[in-house]
Amino acid sequence: MATLIVNASSVTALSPSRAERIRTFLQRHNLRAWIAWRPDELVMLSGYFPFWGASLLIYFADAEPVLFVPQIEPKDHIPTGLRVHEYPWGDLKCSDPYSALVAAVGDELTTAKIEPKHVGMNRSAARTSLPIQAAEQIPMPEGFAQQFSALAAKPDAQSQAGFAELYLRKTPEEIAAIRLANRVANVGLQVFLENLQPGVTEAEVAAAVESAIYRQIGRDEIFHSRGWAMVQSGPNSADAGRFNRSTGRRLENGELVLIELATCVNGYWSDLTRTSPVGTPKAEVARLLVVVGDAQHAALDAIRPGIPADHIDASARDKIAAQGLSAFFTHPTGHHVGFRYHDPGFLILPGESARLEPGMVITIEPGVYVSESGGGARIEDNVLVTESGHEVLSRIEGHAGGR
Amino acid sequence: MATLIVNASSVTALSPSRAERIRTFLQRHNLRAWIAWRPDELVMLSGYFPFWGASLLIYFADAEPVLFVPQIEPKDHIPTGLRVHEYPWGDLKCSDPYSALVAAVGDELTTAKIEPKHVGMNRSAARTSLPIQAAEQIPMPEGFAQQFSALAAKPDAQSQAGFAELYLRKTPEEIAAIRLANRVANVGLQVFLENLQPGVTEAEVAAAVESAIYRQIGRDEIFHSRGWAMVQSGPNSADAGRFNRSTGRRLENGELVLIELATCVNGYWSDLTRTSPVGTPKAEVARLLVVVGDAQHAALDAIRPGIPADHIDASARDKIAAQGLSAFFTHPTGHHVGFRYHDPGFLILPGESARLEPGMVITIEPGVYVSESGGGARIEDNVLVTESGHEVLSRIEGHAGGR
Repeated sequence: MATLIVNASSVTALSPSRAERIRTFLQRHNLRAWIAWRPDELVMLSGYFPFWGASLLIYFADAEPVLFVPQIEPKDHIPTGLRVHEYPWGDLKCSDPYSALVAAVGDELTTAKIEPKHVGMNRSAARTSLPIQAAEQIPMPEGFAQQFSALAAKPDAQSQAGFAELYLRKTPEEIAAIRLANRVANVGLQVFLENLQPGVTEAEVAAAVESAIYRQIGRDEIFHSRGWAMVQSGPNSADAGRFNRSTGRRLENGELVLIELATCVNGYWSDLTRTSPVGTPKAEVARLLVVVGDAQHAALDAIRPGIPADHIDASARDKIAAQGLSAFFTHPTGHHVGFRYHDPGFLILPGESARLEPGMVITIEPGVYVSESGGGARIEDNVLVTESGHEVLSRIEGHAGGR
Repeated sequence: MATLIVNASSVTALSPSRAERIRTFLQRHNLRAWIAWRPDELVMLSGYFPFWGASLLIYFADAEPVLFVPQIEPKDHIPTGLRVHEYPWGDLKCSDPYSALVAAVGDELTTAKIEPKHVGMNRSAARTSLPIQAAEQIPMPEGFAQQFSALAAKPDAQSQAGFAELYLRKTPEEIAAIRLANRVANVGLQVFLENLQPGVTEAEVAAAVESAIYRQIGRDEIFHSRGWAMVQSGPNSADAGRFNRSTGRRLENGELVLIELATCVNGYWSDLTRTSPVGTPKAEVARLLVVVGDAQHAALDAIRPGIPADHIDASARDKIAAQGLSAFFTHPTGHHVGFRYHDPGFLILPGESARLEPGMVITIEPGVYVSESGGGARIEDNVLVTESGHEVLSRIEGHAGGR
């Protein structure tokens, strides 16, 4: 287990404000270290976006973090300010490398004289973002978490909730990274609009959008850029409140086309939706476009620090109800976004009393899905809560971006 | 928890030969039911390729399988021959839906009068394929597996190994599906070759390949088609034995360009690599191309039922050693493929005595990665072991496909 000397990469060390928040969290829960392995956890705790998804971080309350990476991990995007260990990942014989990793983690904690009761670990998150190598999921195997029973405290609800709270407010550096993801996503949305022609399939439109996003790698310090575009046209758009996908259906004049677009740039996420007509929309679907546009504007206008989530939701939902369409707005108005396609944290929905704070980044995405009208519409943006109001991160000067 | 009546979809019921193998496996381990939830498990046990990745199947030894899907799952590709339950997945309030699912699974087992000791479940697989909605990972949450402790037997090594063995031999229907994935992948490889021009970035080539694959949705009963293309040029190709990715590097004349391409079509996987020069290759890298070509041919020629894996590996490895390059062939010659990008099962590498059997689909992928020579080369195909020899599933008539 050799310690690497890592040269400075283009990825900078963790921002001071993020480090301060993590330290406060650890102190509050009487913890001296935190073990993390999910990609979104690593990005938040260290700025490191793992390649294989098999990296692990120990974040110490009183020392620099230690990152464990498999020996086959590329090393050129490891941030400064971390100690880095390689662990053996068999090139020729792919035997279980995790025991060696767990042993090394134990050694680190022993050397630091930290007892298990002072070590925390996220055991509860159901969702996780993908690593760079996204074609196959390599979660830590079943027995892996159990192996940590001897190294980490039995998880308690307070520390688990406290960890999830770390996702909520983004630092200026993180906001800049999420802004970049949204800028790249807008390149994809531009391609979406340019491809809305009768006869083109949903999959062809989506493929062009994803391609435009992938091509951004190498520009503006972008080392990873991937989109997941899902395009639903005409009657298929009426399904977009339950699922998003692209089929071989060909676009037709006068109907609506909805794109759901997840974008990951350097480990930070954007989550956008646009709905646009092919040519001139028929009256029965044009009205859906108008109502979600009005609902989104109303929600955006309500965003500022201190406002409860259900107030934001009501601002959008009331506009839709006023048109007699409330039964067709079947999901929350929004969620947190940035470290994942869907960050943990409170939702923007009826009955949610949590209040907005500066630094939060949320989606605002009212939608109505009306099979009888022949379609559905949703407009989704990523919105930063500022000290005085809000800023839409996903509307870029010079990009049409659609409604 | 309403039972759905599912109309016949274009996806046919499980093949008789697969059903027979599963039944034999269950009987051998004295099991009356098997619980599965990973996408690759569901595809193998039922032909169902889950959308959200949150579906669960109970495969009964003596009754038709039961599939649990979240209520927001699209229903049009659920195969015939399954009983289907929806479980609540909150549209407006995303509370934990898994307890309801576990309770429903318990009800099914109680109704069938099956004791926990006769219920098996895969607890050990580290890797899993992705569901259709691939932008975010929704594994069953940490506590989920524990909830099954009361419903399923404590996993024993024999039944776990027996389950993994089910992946090894593919049925004729599954081979046809893997052949289709390879046919689609070849469309991408054709685009790869057409894009090898000086000045183009690796990411631009990869983006074009993925786009060509996504566009196949809607043709030939293809409802899902996604590629993960990773393109490495010149010196970057020397990293391809450890990791694959695309950067913003621009292609240059005379160098090698390697593409690693994972392709998923309707839930079945292809895993291919091609290496081609930009223009006329320089002598020091041209020789790498020749040696991996020779090594692959030697391995292919050795494939037939009864041959041990290490013999296949040696056939390739000896050719590389004869050129003094054995230190640069740093990984196994191959692995099983089809239900995942990398199926479980024995590897094709030194010291592996497991023998090939008809119906196995393996990769043959010798590679050499020589930084001093300015590049690396690998050629990877997907090969079916037939009764009398082998068939390369990934070489399609009329497609150049590259070396």
